Order: sequence, then structure tokens, then C-alpha cells
Amino acid sequence: MSEILELCKRAKEASALMSRLGTDEKNQALLAVADALVEHHSEIIKGNRLDMDNAVENGMSDALKDRLLLTEARLESIAEGVRQVAALDDPIGEILSMKKRPNGLMIGQMRVPMGVIGIIYESRPNVTVDSFALTFKTGNATILRGGSDCIHSNIALVHVIREALESKGVPVDAVQLVENTDRALVTELMQQRDYVDLLIPRGGAGLIRSVVENAKVPVIETGTGNCHIYIDKTADLDQAVQIVRNAKLQRLGVCNAAESLVIHKDIAEMALPLIAADLASEDCEIRGDAAAQAISNIVVPATEEDYGTEYLAKIISAKIVGSLDEAIAHINKYSTGHSEAILTKDYTSAQRFLREIDSACVYVNASTRFTDGFEFGFGAEIGISTQKLHARGPMGLLALTSTKYIIYGDGQIRP
Amino acid sequence: MSEILELCKRAKEASALMSRLGTDEKNQALLAVADALVEHHSEIIKGNRLDMDNAVENGMSDALKDRLLLTEARLESIAEGVRQVAALDDPIGEILSMKKRPNGLMIGQMRVPMGVIGIIYESRPNVTVDSFALTFKTGNATILRGGSDCIHSNIALVHVIREALESKGVPVDAVQLVENTDRALVTELMQQRDYVDLLIPRGGAGLIRSVVENAKVPVIETGTGNCHIYIDKTADLDQAVQIVRNAKLQRLGVCNAAESLVIHKDIAEMALPLIAADLASEDCEIRGDAAAQAISNIVVPATEEDYGTEYLAKIISAKIVGSLDEAIAHINKYSTGHSEAILTKDYTSAQRFLREIDSACVYVNASTRFTDGFEFGFGAEIGISTQKLHARGPMGLLALTSTKYIIYGDGQIRP
Repeated sequence: MSEILELCKRAKEASALMSRLGTDEKNQALLAVADALVEHHSEIIKGNRLDMDNAVENGMSDALKDRLLLTEARLESIAEGVRQVAALDDPIGEILSMKKRPNGLMIGQMRVPMGVIGIIYESRPNVTVDSFALTFKTGNATILRGGSDCIHSNIALVHVIREALESKGVPVDAVQLVENTDRALVTELMQQRDYVDLLIPRGGAGLIRSVVENAKVPVIETGTGNCHIYIDKTADLDQAVQIVRNAKLQRLGVCNAAESLVIHKDIAEMALPLIAADLASEDCEIRGDAAAQAISNIVVPATEEDYGTEYLAKIISAKIVGSLDEAIAHINKYSTGHSEAILTKDYTSAQRFLREIDSACVYVNASTRFTDGFEFGFGAEIGISTQKLHARGPMGLLALTSTKYIIYGDGQIRP
Repeated sequence: MSEILELCKRAKEASALMSRLGTDEKNQALLAVADALVEHHSEIIKGNRLDMDNAVENGMSDALKDRLLLTEARLESIAEGVRQVAALDDPIGEILSMKKRPNGLMIGQMRVPMGVIGIIYESRPNVTVDSFALTFKTGNATILRGGSDCIHSNIALVHVIREALESKGVPVDAVQLVENTDRALVTELMQQRDYVDLLIPRGGAGLIRSVVENAKVPVIETGTGNCHIYIDKTADLDQAVQIVRNAKLQRLGVCNAAESLVIHKDIAEMALPLIAADLASEDCEIRGDAAAQAISNIVVPATEEDYGTEYLAKIISAKIVGSLDEAIAHINKYSTGHSEAILTKDYTSAQRFLREIDSACVYVNASTRFTDGFEFGFGAEIGISTQKLHARGPMGLLALTSTKYIIYGDGQIRP
């Protein structure tokens, strides 16, 4: 039997046991894992050291090395994240509705674990622990496949987690790591429809595309964000400057950062110079169409490609439009369906924008930077879905669950 | 541009317009379609006649020919189905929740159309109209790809539907038919991630497998049903006989029919002879393990393969188990995750069965035949999902919708 098939079979068996665990048992196990991560820090840091040595040898950039590095303090913080997940409400077993049919059948929906979840990610070892905690809390068995760059860190982390689970009498195969980082194995994992209920890719656009292209198992696409801010003709100018600055610059490398401004022509002559000056003061470049360039000489020319680009840098595109309709059409054409905002004082514009923009999160008068599981009050986040099936927008614990119908009868047969 | 790409682009454009239609507009259009189907019956029946002639030429079975046949009376009944969909509540625009965050942001979820839905099905022309009505009611644009056996019926039906939509000023590309039944085109349709939000295969196991294997677009798998009835040691014997008869024999060729009996050993000597005699009186064969054969000489030997078979015929498998645990393990191993029932008077057995059986619908003391969108009170059904993502169990209108987050702010920026 192949390595992957063995992992899958063990996960499926663990998943059946997981579905019977009570909330207290799961929480106690999570707390034991948190303690173990701190207690066994030297074992984990030893593994991480191997990855760091390889990183230096392979000439990895400083930014990526920083993401890879584990320290005692970072392990404390990762453990604290696990404790926070333990403290969240357990969604499993909740009855979502229970209705009585005319024939007396009581039909309800019970929230249940998804089953076996595969998580495919890149080189951040904290994702290993975080993914485990969220999928475990929701009663799933998980197969982790991290990047080869952090394989030794992951082996050490998963070893410590599994030992902690064992100490609590919980199925250790609730979490397994694909230790062989051969790419053929990850493709095999993506095709195990009989064993894996859901795949979640966590990482860059290339990784996500590869999973979406190759998977036969259902996938939740956690997509990129080409987020727009539309400044309607009645927008508050001060607010517009503040929100654009926040959405573009508060953090550059994130999917909910704004990448494109769309401005109504009736306000552009007032709004654009203010915004352009403010952004320029932070060395942020504006690439705009001819109309935008005519208004502000800070604006450099934008190409068609610019409007479809997620810069993740100090660059923003700008487009002047003649109407709300034109704004909505432009945004729906170029957005990645992540997060878009309208800044307006007009009731109808706000309501139309909310209704007609086809994105996971649509804002009125606020920064797109709030698209986040914690900011939305979920207490956790496994990613931000830009597909429309199952989960859309920030995904908390509920995205890792399914439902089943439960039906209480007293002898009913179908006439 | 390829034929499929053109259909997809038109569907995407129609979808944007559809999302703006009000409930009254959609309902008026559905009623106009219903009227047109009746009014233009001769045009439709003329198309159907071509398919029926081909069916005779190709030696199609009488049962399949009957499914293909359209008559004036059948068109009346299909039109009545469309009117019933018009009468259902419109789920689009509903706000599912709206919570205030500490920073004053109001965050809610709005129910929205899925967007563009592809429906891939076989040779029943009523599916064409039914799929249109349900996807249209939920504000989606739909691309239909029916079987080549009913292509002329489908061309006529979709022509009549589109004319009726046009008469109401509604985007005609809300429904399009892939008129070229070349298989390469259906594969191309399954890969249009940029245009198609969801694929639903409706038909036999082969069709569903092919879609699941080839699609890059998210799919809802509407699966087969190897449904089980477990007769616990405290089951009511009269009820058991009635429920087994109903679940097995009330309709043979359906996915919610029971295909396998699992019987606790402590009740088997009483229950099995009664059930076997009752089923035998309807010429239904029982294939069982050695223990079942020892109890009843009506029972013929079952092979391992029998336990995994969806017979859709007057055959049922039987397995004697020593405990509830064994019953649950057997069912979770062989079921297709569709519908399973326990017959019991025991509280704990009932609750454990509901919790531990990993199927879309789990019953206590009722026939599995109730797994159906109409029986569940949805007023419609697009299929029965056996996957865990997005929709599980009978799918009504809600399964054809997605949600988006809408956020009302007053200038919030992220600190």
C-alpha cells in the first residue's frame, strides 16, 4: 500500500473515533498540546535549526527565514494560540433546526465534523500547529503537508503534538504529517476521494492554483485579494484619505489590502489630489488612467494589467468613472472577489454597491483590512475563501464542519 | 472563441443582471415560462418526436423511452412544477445575521445567488425545465447540458423558455443549452473556473463519477444510496416489518430505498423470519451471512460484494451483528453516506446511532424513503448530496445560493 493511502486509512479510522470525543476531552487534549509545545521547546528548536541551516545554505531571503524561525518565545505564543482555540465554543453537536413535519417526523440538522481534512501549505511552521488546533477542535482528523523548507520543524512539532494526544488517550492519528516531501505524494493526496473530505491549500497563488487544478477531493480556495475602494461622489473626503491610507498601507503583504482606487469623476478633482499627496508622503505610487493623470501630476500611467494586479507593495492603481454603474462594472471585472468598499453618504449608492458587488466581503465606509476571522469575531481563522461553495469570506471553526440531517420517527413509512 | 467559452461569457453577463432582479420579476417570468410550455406544446412535442424516433431506431428500452416521452399532459404537469417554484419563498437577499462589533462595524451575511451553475444530466427532458426553474428562482444563470438522446426535446424546451423570458424583459441568457452534444465540450465546460461557480451532475453513477473526475469547477456530488436499516435488539417487530417493506419495496429504482438489513443477534431469530416471509411474499430475495441463513432458509448466501451493492431491485442483503458498535462499524464501512435508519426502543442506542453514523440523513424508527426535498418540506429538490461540503442531504433552493458578508461602517480603519 502506498504511503499516502496508509496515512489516509489511519486518518479515516481516527476520524470515526474523533466524532465521538466530547468537548471536554478535546479541550483537555488541546491544553496538553499547548503545554507540550512549551515543555519540549528544545526538541522542536533542534528540528527548526536543521531547517534554518538548510535555509542559509539555499540562500533563502531574510524575510522568509524570519517566517521559518522558531524560538522559545514564538513557541510560547503558538501554544497560547492553541489555548485560545481550546477556549472557543465547540460547534460540534449543535442542532441547527428541528422542525415537525405533518406526518410527525421531527427533522433537524446536526453540526458534525467534516471528517478527514488535508491541509497543504508552505514554509511557516506555525501553520502546522494552528491547522491542527482548528481541525482538532472541530473533531476532524487532519493530514498535514507542509513545505520541504520546514520539514524538520514540522516533524518535531507533529511528534510533540501526537505524544501529547497519546498522553490524553486521544487518537494520535487525529494529526499526521506527510514526512516525504516528494511532490508526487501531494498529488496522490489530492485524489483520495474515498478518504479525504476536504482539502484546504494555505499559501501563495501558485500553491492554490496547483491544488485547484489537480485535486479530485473538494477544495476550498483561499484566494488572493485585488481589493478595491470606490470613492463615490458624496464620500467624506477626510474619511476617504484615512481609509485609503489604512487599506493600502497599514500592512502591505496581506490579501485584504486595497490595490485599486475607483473614483467618481464629480469628486475626483477634490479627492484625488488629497489622497495622492497623502500616499506619496509614504512613498506609495499611484498608477492611473488619463483622467487621473490630468487631475494629479503625481499619478503615473496605468496599463490594463495594473487593474488586475495584486501589488502587495506601495503601489495602487486608480481609475476615474462616470457613474456608480461604471464603478460596479469595473470592480466586478477586475476584482478577485475578496473585499471591496464604497465610501459614500448616499443611501441608494451604498445599498446598490452591497447588493451588486460580487465579492466575499463588501464594505460601506470602512477599510477592507477588516476582512479577517478575528476582526469578524470568530476567534480563529483557517483562511479567507474566495469561492462561493460552502464558505465565503473569513473562515472560522464553522467552515471546518458539515451537517447531517437527523430524523426522529415513531414508525413512519412513506405512503 | 470556443462555443463553450461563448456560452460561459454570456452566462456570466446574464448572472450580473440576474442578481439585480426582484422577486416579483423572477416570479412573473417563471409564470410566463409555465404558460409558454403549455401554449407551445406542439413545438415541443415535435422536437420530442425526433428524439423518440431516434430512440426507437437505437433500440432504447421501453422504460427509458417512457422517461423520454413528452405529451401534452406531461407538459401541463411540468408547467405546474414551474408554477410551484414561483410560489416558493425567494431566499435571495435574506440577511442571515447582523452583529455589531466592538468597533461599531455591523457585520452581516446576505444570501446571494451562486452565480453561474452548470447542470449536466441525462435523458429526461423534465430535468431541463426543473433545473431552469430552481436555478432561475435563486437568481443564477444556468448552462444546461443534457443527454444526446433528448437533444431535440431540450432545444425546443429551452427555445420556448428563452422566448418567454424575453417577453418579460428578463435576460434570456439566464438559461442556455449546450446544443452540440460532443463530449469534448462537456469536459471543457467542467474546467471553466473563471466563469462557472458550481457544477451539479444529475444522473447515474457513471455520469457523476465522470464529472467528479474531470471537473476543475466546484461540484456537488449527488450520490448513489446503499441505504441500511439496523434492527436493534429492542426494535418493535411489527414496525420493523412495515418499515423494511416500505424502505425496500415502495419504489425500487430510487436512491433512498433500503439495500441492506443489519440485525442484532438477540432479535434476529424473531425478526428475520417475519421480515423474510414478508419480503418473499413480494418476490424480494434476501442475501445474508451464515448466521442469517441459519435462522431463515429463505435467505440465500451473500458475498462481500453484496454488502456494497445498491441493487435498485427486489434484492436486499442481511447481516447479523453482535452489538450496536458492530452495526455502526458495518454501516459506516459499506454505506454510501446517503440514508440509514435504526429501529429501536432504546434511548442510548438511538442517540448513539444518530451521532455516530456518518451519513447525510440518519433516522430513528422511520423509513429511509423520506430522504427527499419535498418530504423534508423544502418545496423543491435539485438532488441529494452525499458530499459534506456546502450541502449534505436533500438540496432545495438554499443549496443553489451562496452568501456574502456585508459590512456597514462609519469610517472605521484597522488600528
